[in-house]
Amino acid sequence: MSKDFSTREENYSKWYNDIVLKADLAENSAVRGCMVIKPYGYSIWEKMQQQLDIMFKETGHENAYFPLFIPKSFFSKEASHVEGFAKECAVVTHYRLKNSPDGKGIIVDEDAKLEEELIVRPTSETIIWNTYKGWIQSYRDLPILVNQWANVVRWEMRTRLFLRTAEFLWQEGHTAHATEQEAINETEKMLEVYAEFAEEWLAIPVIKGVKSPNERFAGALETYCIEALMQDGKALQAGTSHFLGQNFAKAFDVKFLSKENKLEYVWATSWGVSTRLMGALVMSHSDDKGLIIPPKLAPIQVVIVPIYKTDEECEKVCAKGRELKSILSGSGIRVKLDDRTTHKPGYKFADWEFKGVPIRIGLGPKDLANQTLELARRDTLEKDIVPESGIAERISALLKEIQSNLFDKALKFREKNTFSVDTYEDFKRILNEGGGFVYAHWDGTAETEERIKEETKATIRCIPLAPTLEEGKCIFSGKPSAHRVLFARAY
Amino acid sequence: MSKDFSTREENYSKWYNDIVLKADLAENSAVRGCMVIKPYGYSIWEKMQQQLDIMFKETGHENAYFPLFIPKSFFSKEASHVEGFAKECAVVTHYRLKNSPDGKGIIVDEDAKLEEELIVRPTSETIIWNTYKGWIQSYRDLPILVNQWANVVRWEMRTRLFLRTAEFLWQEGHTAHATEQEAINETEKMLEVYAEFAEEWLAIPVIKGVKSPNERFAGALETYCIEALMQDGKALQAGTSHFLGQNFAKAFDVKFLSKENKLEYVWATSWGVSTRLMGALVMSHSDDKGLIIPPKLAPIQVVIVPIYKTDEECEKVCAKGRELKSILSGSGIRVKLDDRTTHKPGYKFADWEFKGVPIRIGLGPKDLANQTLELARRDTLEKDIVPESGIAERISALLKEIQSNLFDKALKFREKNTFSVDTYEDFKRILNEGGGFVYAHWDGTAETEERIKEETKATIRCIPLAPTLEEGKCIFSGKPSAHRVLFARAY
Repeated sequence: MSKDFSTREENYSKWYNDIVLKADLAENSAVRGCMVIKPYGYSIWEKMQQQLDIMFKETGHENAYFPLFIPKSFFSKEASHVEGFAKECAVVTHYRLKNSPDGKGIIVDEDAKLEEELIVRPTSETIIWNTYKGWIQSYRDLPILVNQWANVVRWEMRTRLFLRTAEFLWQEGHTAHATEQEAINETEKMLEVYAEFAEEWLAIPVIKGVKSPNERFAGALETYCIEALMQDGKALQAGTSHFLGQNFAKAFDVKFLSKENKLEYVWATSWGVSTRLMGALVMSHSDDKGLIIPPKLAPIQVVIVPIYKTDEECEKVCAKGRELKSILSGSGIRVKLDDRTTHKPGYKFADWEFKGVPIRIGLGPKDLANQTLELARRDTLEKDIVPESGIAERISALLKEIQSNLFDKALKFREKNTFSVDTYEDFKRILNEGGGFVYAHWDGTAETEERIKEETKATIRCIPLAPTLEEGKCIFSGKPSAHRVLFARAY
Repeated sequence: MSKDFSTREENYSKWYNDIVLKADLAENSAVRGCMVIKPYGYSIWEKMQQQLDIMFKETGHENAYFPLFIPKSFFSKEASHVEGFAKECAVVTHYRLKNSPDGKGIIVDEDAKLEEELIVRPTSETIIWNTYKGWIQSYRDLPILVNQWANVVRWEMRTRLFLRTAEFLWQEGHTAHATEQEAINETEKMLEVYAEFAEEWLAIPVIKGVKSPNERFAGALETYCIEALMQDGKALQAGTSHFLGQNFAKAFDVKFLSKENKLEYVWATSWGVSTRLMGALVMSHSDDKGLIIPPKLAPIQVVIVPIYKTDEECEKVCAKGRELKSILSGSGIRVKLDDRTTHKPGYKFADWEFKGVPIRIGLGPKDLANQTLELARRDTLEKDIVPESGIAERISALLKEIQSNLFDKALKFREKNTFSVDTYEDFKRILNEGGGFVYAHWDGTAETEERIKEETKATIRCIPLAPTLEEGKCIFSGKPSAHRVLFARAY
């Protein structure tokens, strides 16, 4: 398995792609830029969905479903939104095909041209606010706390599996509120949900902050985000939560009668995470032996591999394997017994290691005799012979330990690769030496931000929430600045 | 609520539409033929999804995700499939918009025309079999048992919420097998899963059968289906499972090396159910007072409505309501306490009745004094004063009783409206008098089937599995027939 597999050192980009392909997470499809999410990859995404869905419902949200298509004119209604989203997109112009007159295949029926083109949703603010208009009359109809699980399409020219694909899966929350403060609270609450999910489930430490005006979501007054650091020293935006003000309410004329009997525009938020998190997961934890999945999200937490030579041994070892499987399942552990007769244990060890299963149990005739098992941890690659008795408790504890170890490891990596610089020279040197998160003073202007980006490819990832106030000078312009912002090159 | 609401008698079609709209299940969107599934409707669909997903996984299936778009040429590869699916569909021709030169809105950028048009998937056999080609080399790679939860688009001219919409949500299973028999077994197994789901969860009795060649899925060798009878005497196809033979394997050149070391084409099945089931649910059980949801699928199984006059009463009754809610939740019952102060009990009673909540608990000062509760069943509209003690057990039992009562009621309705006829006159009379399921002899020809359809609008819903052998004569042609088939007018 690992023979034709790149290390991070050799070629980080190929290493990432190899893991995604060879661990059976996803592959490219016949449609440019669209991926196939394979069963193993999808089962990890399902675990993410399940947990996020629980967290959304705990915070009072309900799911709903809005149309895939958005009339072209809807995009023009919110001035900045159209610039951000209505450009690189899939445009439906016709609704029928017909047999080609030459008898070869099918062609577009020009008689079936749509009066107005439909855009495959790149995000759903416009169609949803057009719908909310019908749902909201009075303050009694507020808040609306709705989430949608859906596919979206953004026509990207250069795509990478999970990180940037033309079609991707995501959730998009769209809420409507009576007051500005309530909407801001919601935006911040969902940022906290994302941060908790990233740290507790993905085992990825994140920096919470707000985007600079330049990097805001098209149509937002404020974009909150969580930023994670990947092993190649590049940042990855892992979730965003937008305070949209009254922009969409004004664009779609959504007003409500307040308690004070006044007609007012509704306040809005939207927030989303996507299958991009799969890319973040791969790049945060995996090593040169393949994928590493945090136990809480692993579809298979423990794999049992029977080791035997004779048929008689096989029978005994596999019987013990089944017994063990049932004990572990009974304790709520997701366990697989790999009793394939078509492959040798060595192959299976490498296979499950590559696929990132947190714990492997090797089980041979010796173990049966001694009432022991061999446990191998995927995160540290340590092996240990342990007694069979009390195995469920031991494994439950070990899964927790692996989960927290992965987080700690990622946090240490981030700490080691987080810098604070005072000069543009140091700034550039760090970016060129291996990247990382770089805290630096910025004068707050879009012009400086743009110039730094042009010259270094680094962008302001966020202005951290509650930054330490510290007088300083912009590394680029030398103008005064009240606190540092977070720079990095990014995915 | 029910003031401007049609009865079934007055206008069945309007009755259906009123329930869907006024019970907040779904509504039409700004995009022709595409619906918005509202939170309450979506929460019922979620319950369906959850249970189906469990049943799919119990039968060995995994989920995956394939692209939304399918290259136009893929449809032409399977001759009958193209006729069935590649005609009325959404066609993506461009991938970019640009600002209009007149400064008004945005227009399609003609420079961004796709070389080959993309079709928004109406069903995914072609893109999936094109993908399976890369997954299958040897018998060791089989079977592939994959399901996808997705949105699909079929450009329908006349749409009805849930029953026929341009975009709908569904699941589509796509499996690959080494032998014909294994594929047939899979097709039949999934039909059983659908039938069990329909009867045990939707509380809708179904007839299992196979379609006549005319009504088969485009590309299938055999289409199995479950057919349900709606309250207006029309049939509704509630799920299909297709044996596809080697048609798609041949179209996409998917071969495998068998155990005997021979290169053979792979055998295929596909099977699906959709948001159409929401329509079936509404039309099977609901009455002139609104929606009725079977308890197993009800997002809210019990609603508690506090009844009070003074603030003091309110406080006491609501406190008891919260206590009751926590007791019922603790027993795994989905319960809502409707303590809105903006609405009166009478309004709430009508509201939840209309929304089909299986059990309503009325709770007033008298009940507190007597340690009693008022229980109202949505299915029979019966009310009962019951002791507060043992309420969780009582409600659990009652939910089961309501579930089975709804099934029995629907079964009785179907039995009363199922006929066996021997003449074309009786056949037409029954269809015109109120419809229903009609068993009749058919000579097995497509021509007869077509003529009957033209003259009566009735179609062969299915040839029942294991029909009673019974010599007879075709009601239309008088030619001999070995068993009856099931006719009905259908949705």
